[in-house]
Amino acid sequence: MLQSMPEASPAKWHLAHTTWFFERFMLARQPGYRPVDARWDVLFNSYYQGVGPMHARPQRGVLSRPSLDEVLSYRDEIDARTARRCEADGLDDRDRQVLLLGTHHEQQHQELLLTDIQHALWCNPLRPAYRDDLPQPADAASPLAWRHYDEAVVEIGAPRWPDAQDFSYDNESPRHRVLVAAHALAQRPVSNAEFRAFVDDGGYADPLLWLSDGWDWRQREGLARPLYWDEDCAHAFTLAGMRPLAPHAPVCHLGYFEADAFARWAGARLPTEFEWEQAAAGSAVDGNLLDADVLQPQATPATIDTPRQLFGDVWEWTSSAYAAYPGFQPMSGTLGEYNGKFMNAAYVLRGGSCATPRDHLRASYRNFFAPAARWQFSGLRLARGAG
Amino acid sequence: MLQSMPEASPAKWHLAHTTWFFERFMLARQPGYRPVDARWDVLFNSYYQGVGPMHARPQRGVLSRPSLDEVLSYRDEIDARTARRCEADGLDDRDRQVLLLGTHHEQQHQELLLTDIQHALWCNPLRPAYRDDLPQPADAASPLAWRHYDEAVVEIGAPRWPDAQDFSYDNESPRHRVLVAAHALAQRPVSNAEFRAFVDDGGYADPLLWLSDGWDWRQREGLARPLYWDEDCAHAFTLAGMRPLAPHAPVCHLGYFEADAFARWAGARLPTEFEWEQAAAGSAVDGNLLDADVLQPQATPATIDTPRQLFGDVWEWTSSAYAAYPGFQPMSGTLGEYNGKFMNAAYVLRGGSCATPRDHLRASYRNFFAPAARWQFSGLRLARGAG
Amino acid sequence: MLQSMPEASPAKWHLAHTTWFFERFMLARQPGYRPVDARWDVLFNSYYQGVGPMHARPQRGVLSRPSLDEVLSYRDEIDARTARRCEADGLDDRDRQVLLLGTHHEQQHQELLLTDIQHALWCNPLRPAYRDDLPQPADAASPLAWRHYDEAVVEIGAPRWPDAQDFSYDNESPRHRVLVAAHALAQRPVSNAEFRAFVDDGGYADPLLWLSDGWDWRQREGLARPLYWDEDCAHAFTLAGMRPLAPHAPVCHLGYFEADAFARWAGARLPTEFEWEQAAAGSAVDGNLLDADVLQPQATPATIDTPRQLFGDVWEWTSSAYAAYPGFQPMSGTLGEYNGKFMNAAYVLRGGSCATPRDHLRASYRNFFAPAARWQFSGLRLARGAG
Amino acid sequence: MLQSMPEASPAKWHLAHTTWFFERFMLARQPGYRPVDARWDVLFNSYYQGVGPMHARPQRGVLSRPSLDEVLSYRDEIDARTARRCEADGLDDRDRQVLLLGTHHEQQHQELLLTDIQHALWCNPLRPAYRDDLPQPADAASPLAWRHYDEAVVEIGAPRWPDAQDFSYDNESPRHRVLVAAHALAQRPVSNAEFRAFVDDGGYADPLLWLSDGWDWRQREGLARPLYWDEDCAHAFTLAGMRPLAPHAPVCHLGYFEADAFARWAGARLPTEFEWEQAAAGSAVDGNLLDADVLQPQATPATIDTPRQLFGDVWEWTSSAYAAYPGFQPMSGTLGEYNGKFMNAAYVLRGGSCATPRDHLRASYRNFFAPAARWQFSGLRLARGAG
Repeated sequence: MLQSMPEASPAKWHLAHTTWFFERFMLARQPGYRPVDARWDVLFNSYYQGVGPMHARPQRGVLSRPSLDEVLSYRDEIDARTARRCEADGLDDRDRQVLLLGTHHEQQHQELLLTDIQHALWCNPLRPAYRDDLPQPADAASPLAWRHYDEAVVEIGAPRWPDAQDFSYDNESPRHRVLVAAHALAQRPVSNAEFRAFVDDGGYADPLLWLSDGWDWRQREGLARPLYWDEDCAHAFTLAGMRPLAPHAPVCHLGYFEADAFARWAGARLPTEFEWEQAAAGSAVDGNLLDADVLQPQATPATIDTPRQLFGDVWEWTSSAYAAYPGFQPMSGTLGEYNGKFMNAAYVLRGGSCATPRDHLRASYRNFFAPAARWQFSGLRLARGAG
Repeated sequence: MLQSMPEASPAKWHLAHTTWFFERFMLARQPGYRPVDARWDVLFNSYYQGVGPMHARPQRGVLSRPSLDEVLSYRDEIDARTARRCEADGLDDRDRQVLLLGTHHEQQHQELLLTDIQHALWCNPLRPAYRDDLPQPADAASPLAWRHYDEAVVEIGAPRWPDAQDFSYDNESPRHRVLVAAHALAQRPVSNAEFRAFVDDGGYADPLLWLSDGWDWRQREGLARPLYWDEDCAHAFTLAGMRPLAPHAPVCHLGYFEADAFARWAGARLPTEFEWEQAAAGSAVDGNLLDADVLQPQATPATIDTPRQLFGDVWEWTSSAYAAYPGFQPMSGTLGEYNGKFMNAAYVLRGGSCATPRDHLRASYRNFFAPAARWQFSGLRLARGAG
Repeated sequence: MLQSMPEASPAKWHLAHTTWFFERFMLARQPGYRPVDARWDVLFNSYYQGVGPMHARPQRGVLSRPSLDEVLSYRDEIDARTARRCEADGLDDRDRQVLLLGTHHEQQHQELLLTDIQHALWCNPLRPAYRDDLPQPADAASPLAWRHYDEAVVEIGAPRWPDAQDFSYDNESPRHRVLVAAHALAQRPVSNAEFRAFVDDGGYADPLLWLSDGWDWRQREGLARPLYWDEDCAHAFTLAGMRPLAPHAPVCHLGYFEADAFARWAGARLPTEFEWEQAAAGSAVDGNLLDADVLQPQATPATIDTPRQLFGDVWEWTSSAYAAYPGFQPMSGTLGEYNGKFMNAAYVLRGGSCATPRDHLRASYRNFFAPAARWQFSGLRLARGAG
Repeated sequence: MLQSMPEASPAKWHLAHTTWFFERFMLARQPGYRPVDARWDVLFNSYYQGVGPMHARPQRGVLSRPSLDEVLSYRDEIDARTARRCEADGLDDRDRQVLLLGTHHEQQHQELLLTDIQHALWCNPLRPAYRDDLPQPADAASPLAWRHYDEAVVEIGAPRWPDAQDFSYDNESPRHRVLVAAHALAQRPVSNAEFRAFVDDGGYADPLLWLSDGWDWRQREGLARPLYWDEDCAHAFTLAGMRPLAPHAPVCHLGYFEADAFARWAGARLPTEFEWEQAAAGSAVDGNLLDADVLQPQATPATIDTPRQLFGDVWEWTSSAYAAYPGFQPMSGTLGEYNGKFMNAAYVLRGGSCATPRDHLRASYRNFFAPAARWQFSGLRLARGAG
């Protein structure tokens, strides 16, 4: 029930909200539908102005009622009602779309559940572990290699669902052409050891490495290392509690500002989301994902001449502001609020993390967070010009 | 585990903190004492700088660990250890003092537990009740009568404990002489109906009735009636959920600023704490207290010529800033932080409420809160000059 | 025109406001009066809700219009109109009262003009002097002596003006009896050298010396010495620019919290305003006041057995919260807002400073400021119990 | 000397800062150079971390010293020193670059001087005019026409100066290819009358028209119309004081959020900066610019088949987040802080305004402001897909 910051939500709220999504946007479309509890429409509405008022986000932690038991019963009840509607073949096209969308929505919240819990536990000076049975990540160095790309016109994004058969979010469409300039992309994400060198070199103390807003943020918050790193820069808080940092595992829990400052220090830059998608376009969605149940980024042995770890381990900050693709159309109706209205003051992250379900991802998938957000499994991969 | 505002604490925290008080200030005095969990010293220290660092007050809601079960076991364990120390006759004078002080301390938290829970439940749009079995308060009008007092030198306060045998807090001593000017004091607290007349007369809209800070506060917070009153001014949120307002019961959940503005509107003023104590000095501690298990203020039939409801129902705001009595000495050692360091920006309330244990009170008892605090059972009684 | 903080006002605004006071509260009482500029009623109204809306206090610095020339002409014009009214013998009793009140009001602003200018100049890293011709204060040590007082009933305050002939503010009346306990009062204010010893002893680093609100304030603001002291604790910013600190001159520019912490460290306490007034009651108003044109506190050679420097040098913080005397009646009409509505969250200072006009003061004079205010010429004198 | 908000600067500061720029970055490069006043390095450094500490931006209004006379003398002195260096042929390549850059820098501040003064005067309830001699803008309706563009690869930006001969800022380079999708662009900016229709249609009250951050901002600030519009939506505050709104003149003083919401309401969108530059690429820099001395946007008679008012009248918000072009290199040395470090949380505006000097502009010129900034002469032009 705990809410450790306005951006995070209590676990119980995640459970109720994802179920409410099905009830409100699918079941309630049927005339005469009687909601399980009409008052919960306010409590578990996240941000959909189109369906009425909502409980203030920073106040989700005060919802001692309904109880966890009531929420679990609510989930069962909505599952049962949905099953009955399916069996009765009572679903129209829109229902089916909401049903599919709702499962993807719930997958997003599966990841947030973990990152919000990690943050909540970290706020406790006792630093309790979420699970005691997680493996210590493997660790093996591999040198940083670069892959070169010539200037090209690249197809970006996904055909618009549900016109197209394969699911994608509205913000991934339309598929369109982008001219990507010649450049080089690192074969793997930046590691803890590499980021440690930035820290040791005074990276957090040199304003010339930072964006102006980033420097102000760093000063105001007194930041000196990634979120969850111990002062010794040799341990970090994970879902398994405090753990030694694996030097060669991807660095994690960075804000955009830190990722950007590191890249500048390294004489490189962040890739655009188009450069990332071009690299990932042919690859299978595979890697250290939620399904692997490691729940921490880990080092992966080098392979020859192929970009590694594009999927899984850490979401990779790109330099692309989160914006509409040319011809972007939000989903119809209230669900148009799902993605489009957040296209400001955020950057795109790509590739998924060790907490993302494998079948939730694709090469065109666009995640986005504010540049000061650090509690996701967020890291970076370097890019640079072609010269 | 819920913390609805920085001033309130989670129920679990109250349980742990009151037990920690005994462990830290009594048991731990013994050389070689091994605490149940040394890390809890930080978590459950409220504000004692003298015993080390403390968990930030507004962050008490993030303490998902230790669990409620662990806290209850902690209480049992400390009880057991205390019992063993008592049986072994291992208590010295200071131990005995802390033991007695600790029980009074726990009584204070019993009241806070209820007021904090009421606030937390009220923050939930569902407005759930804490208990369903509470009676609707009786209601019977009685006219406002005044009792006159001539100028007098009055003995105020309590002899300093533990030099004196009877327990009192350090802020009640030394007992000393005060010259109290001639005045009149109302025989009963202000009622809901009387306060409703102030609201209806535009009392919340006339800056000339308010202290300057009070008016700014009212404007900033958009206040228009007592905390917990419904917009209709006919119902209010109680520990029994939403209830019709009893017109003749004492008005409750006022800040000092509202009590002061009402008194000005009524052509009167708040009493000083000395005037209050003078009136209460001879009376038995009796009334609608926690022991009555009503948990709401209620009207009391009129009696002739005696001040009523001095004890119980509502804490009564006085015009006295919370300050040291002449010759005040804080308790020795770290416990000196218990009361003395809060002698700023607060006003004294007297008399206890429907949530105060009877044996916690006395005529010299001084409660204190910031002038904007409204979530206690706080009301007022009028006073005026002698003329 | 500069406003360096919300609490301070631009010099130009002081000039216009004090003149507006005469126009609005005296001249405008005449039926058919035509104001110099009706729109200035909003600009130069400080806080009188009773005469209409007012320009926001923190925004006084944006008033580039009217220009200084226009304001000076305004002052001349109102002086001329007032003179014509006087010559025509057109003043009624109330007019005469406002005229007298207005001159005392203007004297208050004479002091604020200087303290606000000092603050504004200090905000400039160049630390420019307001005047270059001020003397370096004399300096001569004198030991700290104490004078003892037995318990006594003391007459405090002034008879209510204008019923009484001698002018006083409403907050000084009615004259009334107070029982003052036996105590001792220091013969002179605390000196810079004494306060330096507190700083050197870690006074700003020990929470046990501070009120809780004071400690929070100290932490939040990062305070480590009096306002205007240089880091070296050997120089301070004055109206004469940066100057060496005179060790034996009264320490100055302290908030209440610092004065209170110092007193605790010194094993003493602040006096009550009654103790101060009792000591000052018989004395002539004399000392290092505005008329001496030193504009800095200075040391005064010791005298035998008489309290020194009660008037002038520094306003002395008392432990008395600023509150109404028993039977207090605000001035009638809108001028009732002059003093009464500020009786919250402030402490009384007594005695005037090196920036106070001599004929503005009296033994019953009550100044008041918030406990965090430091930009006045505010210091302290110690008191202690009689024992 | 007045600073009406943290984002604006006092006129005196603009005068001193632009001169400091020449002294610090050009004159001071000469070994042994003696600055006019070394302490001013802190006062008039805007944001260059590379040359040392700086006076806090929101505190520029407290700089009563140096006086305006001293600043004007400073300007003369630096002009004279610069002239001597030029005559002595003492300029190397870098000096010449700084000299040219410094003049463009000063042109930027010429516009800011006007917009900051307008804001400062507007904060004064008297609403004084900056100038009384400005013409009332002409007004003539012209229908909204669209021009269609096919998909194309377009050359965007300017060759990097000083490698290239023509001056441009570093953020405009390198010149590079961008694939611009097929689209249509409005032939003229949105007018006051058109924006009035949005207001009348409840545009400020419908959350579904706004970005989420924009809606929060609108709610928090209570916005209901463009900055400077009177409540009657028929008059607005200008540099000429309050003026009737010219219905067909371009709407002005919008934030990005308002421009974006209007476009959505109109069934269109904002153009990208590439679309804008493609349209402007061939045009002469001409229009209602500073040189016209109108200082207000005005309507321009229709022309056939050519985009109008691309330059002048109002800066046009684009949908492009302010970001680096591929291969962007900041200027070398400290001047690299000029533009690059602000590439976050801002949007690009194009085309200049009625307060921009004509020879300051070019088709590749990129201005940028935060999405909530409204005090510039900022409006919009609509775009839409090609369909």
